[in-house]
Amino acid sequence: MKITMAHGSGGSSSKELMSEIFGKHFSNDVLDKMEDAAVLKMTDGEIAMSTDSFVVTPVEFRGGDIGKLCVCGTVNDILMMGAEPKYLTCGFILEEGLDTDVLDRVVASMAAQAREAGVKIVAGDTKVVEGSGGLMINTTGIGIIPEGRDVSAANCKPGDKVIVSGTLGDHHACILSARMEIENEIKSDCGCLKDITDALFGEGIEVHTMRDVTRGGMGTILNEIADSAGCKIVVEESAVPVSEAVKGFSGMLGLDPLYMGNEGKMIAIVPGDQADKALELMRGTEHGKDAAIIAEVTEPEQAGGSAVHIKTPLGATRVLDVLYGEGLPRIC
Amino acid sequence: MKITMAHGSGGSSSKELMSEIFGKHFSNDVLDKMEDAAVLKMTDGEIAMSTDSFVVTPVEFRGGDIGKLCVCGTVNDILMMGAEPKYLTCGFILEEGLDTDVLDRVVASMAAQAREAGVKIVAGDTKVVEGSGGLMINTTGIGIIPEGRDVSAANCKPGDKVIVSGTLGDHHACILSARMEIENEIKSDCGCLKDITDALFGEGIEVHTMRDVTRGGMGTILNEIADSAGCKIVVEESAVPVSEAVKGFSGMLGLDPLYMGNEGKMIAIVPGDQADKALELMRGTEHGKDAAIIAEVTEPEQAGGSAVHIKTPLGATRVLDVLYGEGLPRIC
Repeated sequence: MKITMAHGSGGSSSKELMSEIFGKHFSNDVLDKMEDAAVLKMTDGEIAMSTDSFVVTPVEFRGGDIGKLCVCGTVNDILMMGAEPKYLTCGFILEEGLDTDVLDRVVASMAAQAREAGVKIVAGDTKVVEGSGGLMINTTGIGIIPEGRDVSAANCKPGDKVIVSGTLGDHHACILSARMEIENEIKSDCGCLKDITDALFGEGIEVHTMRDVTRGGMGTILNEIADSAGCKIVVEESAVPVSEAVKGFSGMLGLDPLYMGNEGKMIAIVPGDQADKALELMRGTEHGKDAAIIAEVTEPEQAGGSAVHIKTPLGATRVLDVLYGEGLPRIC
Repeated sequence: MKITMAHGSGGSSSKELMSEIFGKHFSNDVLDKMEDAAVLKMTDGEIAMSTDSFVVTPVEFRGGDIGKLCVCGTVNDILMMGAEPKYLTCGFILEEGLDTDVLDRVVASMAAQAREAGVKIVAGDTKVVEGSGGLMINTTGIGIIPEGRDVSAANCKPGDKVIVSGTLGDHHACILSARMEIENEIKSDCGCLKDITDALFGEGIEVHTMRDVTRGGMGTILNEIADSAGCKIVVEESAVPVSEAVKGFSGMLGLDPLYMGNEGKMIAIVPGDQADKALELMRGTEHGKDAAIIAEVTEPEQAGGSAVHIKTPLGATRVLDVLYGEGLPRIC
């Protein structure tokens, strides 16, 4: 069956879609009440709230699909504040002509990933627009920040080390390969980083800053952090993990893995004397097995100047700026 | 200036867009931290959480625009649970070619409506897709439910009365007029219903059920409520307020105002003996000045049968079913 404009009417066809696809996979005590809004219990303390829209094409790719991606993306943003992800809402924008079998697989994938990440889908909305069978999803989530936890871009300090959780560029290379119809074995790294944050906090690592490395790539994210914290960050280029397959692919196309998008990678910035322990903890998790210490935070330079530098394997030091121009449209 | 794919890259162009448009209008203590997620304080109790995507075309229309609409829409959903709206996130999907002047006006309109409704915009996201200069926005919000307040579709009871806050069909007729290039004076009713809910709760009205009357129209919404509560609802057709302009417009096109969409209308279902007072309170507000008692809740029929009936001006009673087929695509 194909999605038609009637599925966005709010009438009987919308209701059918609701029960046959969304209801089937998402059913839970909150959602099943079908009210205008979900009612949730809260307790004294802080929450983290984040929103993300996902427009990736193709919607199904090696290593995941837009459903897995949209749950992981928002869950990861919440995890990066040191929070425990709890609730998720999803807003679907379906293009006319979308195959309901594709929608069913995507929704099933969302439900499975939400279960794995321990979040409940509590509210949803569906609209239908003209188009060519595409699908866009917004997910917004909230998580509880345990008392005393304070993770922020502004918190990193000179002497801290930057650990990346694994190889860079996999999602970008996977989507670009699919788009260009290049056959290779590169898989998206799309995944939920909860195993890593659980490991770090579980062992009492005093994490100053975390950030998932998505659109804009590592280069852009390190600049944002250096700006927020008023520090300088110096990257050791030879320490940055990139898989052989991505290295070959990006080299061929002239892409720099430091600006390529990822969907299951993060950096953690920790005190220098806890870096080795944090690295070992990360390497013990599924999503952090290729983790590496790649940079250190230093005092800012006196006369302004660029905040992120990179030492090349030949010993030169150059500025690592933010991404200019277009990375890859519809990567996430 | 026009939006290009580079504005969705996560790099320097995204940052420019952020500071020049979103930052300019939305700036506040939470958003300005530019973290992966907003950090918000909560206290013991219940919250309401709702999500909505908005895809209306044209994006600017008589009586409002997609910016005003997307704030009001989600705020209204939260209000309908008896909650005080507090925080809003927004996810923008911009189509390549969108005029940044239009975006600037829409974002300014969101900011103004958020201030009026007393909600803070705490997180955002922007993606760019191919297309023809359009704009879609998801808003997700949370509100605090005051202790002891319990408003739910399931709560209405036989003996209750249904009050509608004003004339039906205005938004639908306005959007359709714009789409068909019919010149008339019909304005969208797009608005925030907080004045009405404040008036009702402020005077201690024991509201059982509230619902904003949007896509699918009054007919569909009353059926959803009758289903949830296991009651029958009997509508007095002659009591349903419809403006002369909309009556003329919908009559000409063969549309039924009971299935037309609205964006600033609600129903409140209250105990029969409080209905007159509730009506008077609603009529004292800006958004409720044309309120009317239009239906009563009765015992369900023994042998199943349809749950919503309507008495016509000629004395006949017919079934008022949910909307079938397509109402009007991209109405909200």
